Amino acid sequence: MPEPFRTQRQVEFADTDMAGMVHFANFFRYMEAAEVDFLHSRGLSVAMLRDGGQRIGLPRVAASCDFLQPARFEEILDVVVTIKNLGRKSVTYGFEFFKENIVIARGQITAVCCRVSADRIESVEIPPDIRKKLE
Amino acid sequence: MPEPFRTQRQVEFADTDMAGMVHFANFFRYMEAAEVDFLHSRGLSVAMLRDGGQRIGLPRVAASCDFLQPARFEEILDVVVTIKNLGRKSVTYGFEFFKENIVIARGQITAVCCRVSADRIESVEIPPDIRKKLE
Amino acid sequence: MPEPFRTQRQVEFADTDMAGMVHFANFFRYMEAAEVDFLHSRGLSVAMLRDGGQRIGLPRVAASCDFLQPARFEEILDVVVTIKNLGRKSVTYGFEFFKENIVIARGQITAVCCRVSADRIESVEIPPDIRKKLE
Amino acid sequence: MPEPFRTQRQVEFADTDMAGMVHFANFFRYMEAAEVDFLHSRGLSVAMLRDGGQRIGLPRVAASCDFLQPARFEEILDVVVTIKNLGRKSVTYGFEFFKENIVIARGQITAVCCRVSADRIESVEIPPDIRKKLE
Repeated sequence: MPEPFRTQRQVEFADTDMAGMVHFANFFRYMEAAEVDFLHSRGLSVAMLRDGGQRIGLPRVAASCDFLQPARFEEILDVVVTIKNLGRKSVTYGFEFFKENIVIARGQITAVCCRVSADRIESVEIPPDIRKKLE
Repeated sequence: MPEPFRTQRQVEFADTDMAGMVHFANFFRYMEAAEVDFLHSRGLSVAMLRDGGQRIGLPRVAASCDFLQPARFEEILDVVVTIKNLGRKSVTYGFEFFKENIVIARGQITAVCCRVSADRIESVEIPPDIRKKLE
Repeated sequence: MPEPFRTQRQVEFADTDMAGMVHFANFFRYMEAAEVDFLHSRGLSVAMLRDGGQRIGLPRVAASCDFLQPARFEEILDVVVTIKNLGRKSVTYGFEFFKENIVIARGQITAVCCRVSADRIESVEIPPDIRKKLE
Repeated sequence: MPEPFRTQRQVEFADTDMAGMVHFANFFRYMEAAEVDFLHSRGLSVAMLRDGGQRIGLPRVAASCDFLQPARFEEILDVVVTIKNLGRKSVTYGFEFFKENIVIARGQITAVCCRVSADRIESVEIPPDIRKKLE
C-alpha cells in the first residue's frame, strides 16, 4: 500500500472569522487546494486539456467535513489526502487535517469526470491515462 | 406542522469560479447566511449575548452538501431551511437550494451550543428560551 | 443632477475576521455587488452578451478603499454608488458605505470595457447603447 | 539599502472567477498574506500580544491596487514587499506581483498601530521594538 499524500496549509488572517478561528467554509477551500497538490504529485491537474480540444473537468458533486477542533491564525496544518473510492466516472478523496499530530478535521469530496463544452457538462468515464495516475 | 422557512440568495460575481459556476465552498456560506435569516425569523442570532456576560455561540461540528446542478452569476436561488434534528446540545439544519422550482443542491449543518470564553469553548445544553424558539 | 444610486448590504458572519469586523478585502466584494445592483438599475449587467457572439466585459484595472470605521456582523450598510468618471473606454465608480448616516468607508473601482474572446482580452470603446445607459 | 522582501503565491481554483482569472478582491488577500510573511521574516506578527495584556493590532485604513494583467489558476506569482512609509503611528506597504518577471499588479496597504480592547480601538505610536524591526 502506498504512503498517503501529505501537504501543508498555513492559516491566513482572511481565513478566520469573528469567533477567532478558521471559518468552516474555508476548510473546503483547503481540501480543494490539497487535492490540487495531490493531483500535481501524480502529474495531473484539476483543469486538464485533452486532445481534440475537448476539456475534461472534475466538478464536485458532494462535499462534507467534520470539525473536531478549531484552527487558528498562523497555525500550520498537516493535510493527509487519500483516495477513498475510485469509480468508473467518479473519485472520492478523503482529507484529514492535523495540528501537531492531533486530528482537527476530517472531510471528503466526490468529483465526477465530465466533458465540459460551452453550454454543457456531461459525465464521462475517467480516461484510462488519468485513471492509471489516480490508482 | 409549520411551514418551512424560505429565503433567497442572489449569486454574486465573486462567488463564481473559472468553471463559470458558484464555487462549491460558497454554498456553505450561503447555508450559513440562510441559517442567520432563519434564526432572525425566530428572534435569535448566531452571536448571542447571555446574562452574566457569558457568551453562547453555535460553532459548527459538521457540514455537508450534495451539488446537483450548477448555480450561475445573477441567478436568484430559493433556499428552504428546516430543522432536521434538535438535540440536547446540538441542532442540525437542512437546506435545499432551488432554481425555478428545481432543486440544485441539498446540504446540512450541525451546530453545537457552546459557552465561549476567552480561551475556551465548552459545549452546554441549549438554554430553554433558545430551544423554545427553535422548536 | 440625478439622485445617486443607493443599495444595502448586510454583513454576514463569513465576512468577518478574528478582529471581529468585516475583513477589508470583503469591502471590494461589497463594492462589486453594489456596482451590479447599480448596473441592473440601468438595465445593464457585468457579463453582457453582444450581437455577433462577441462578449463585452468590464474587467477592473484599479480599486481602492479607505476604511474609516469597522463594520460588524449583522449590521446593514447603506451603499451609495456614483459614476466619478466615464471615459471613452473606462468607467470609474465611487462607493460610500454608511452605518446609520455615518460614512465608514469610501472606495472606487475603475473598469475598462473589453472584448473578451477565448484567449484574449482587448480594450474597446464603450458601445454607444451601454454608454447612454451609464450617463 | 536592504534587499526588498520576496515571497510567492500560487493561484488556487477558488481564487478565480467566471472570467477565468483571479478575482480582483483576492489580490488584497494575497497582499495581506505577503505582509504576514514579511512580518514573520522580521520576527513580527499581525496579531501580537504585548505585556500587560494589552493587544496591539494593525488594522488597515487604506488599500489600493492596479491590475495590469490577469493571473490564472496554478500560476505562481512572485510578490515583492517594501515599506513605502513608516510614520509615527502607521506603516504603508508596497506590493508588486510578478509573473515570470513581468509585473502584473501593484498595490499598497496602510495599517495603523492600535491598542485593541474589548469594545474599543485606539491608535497609538508604533512601539519602539516593533519600529526597530520594521525599519
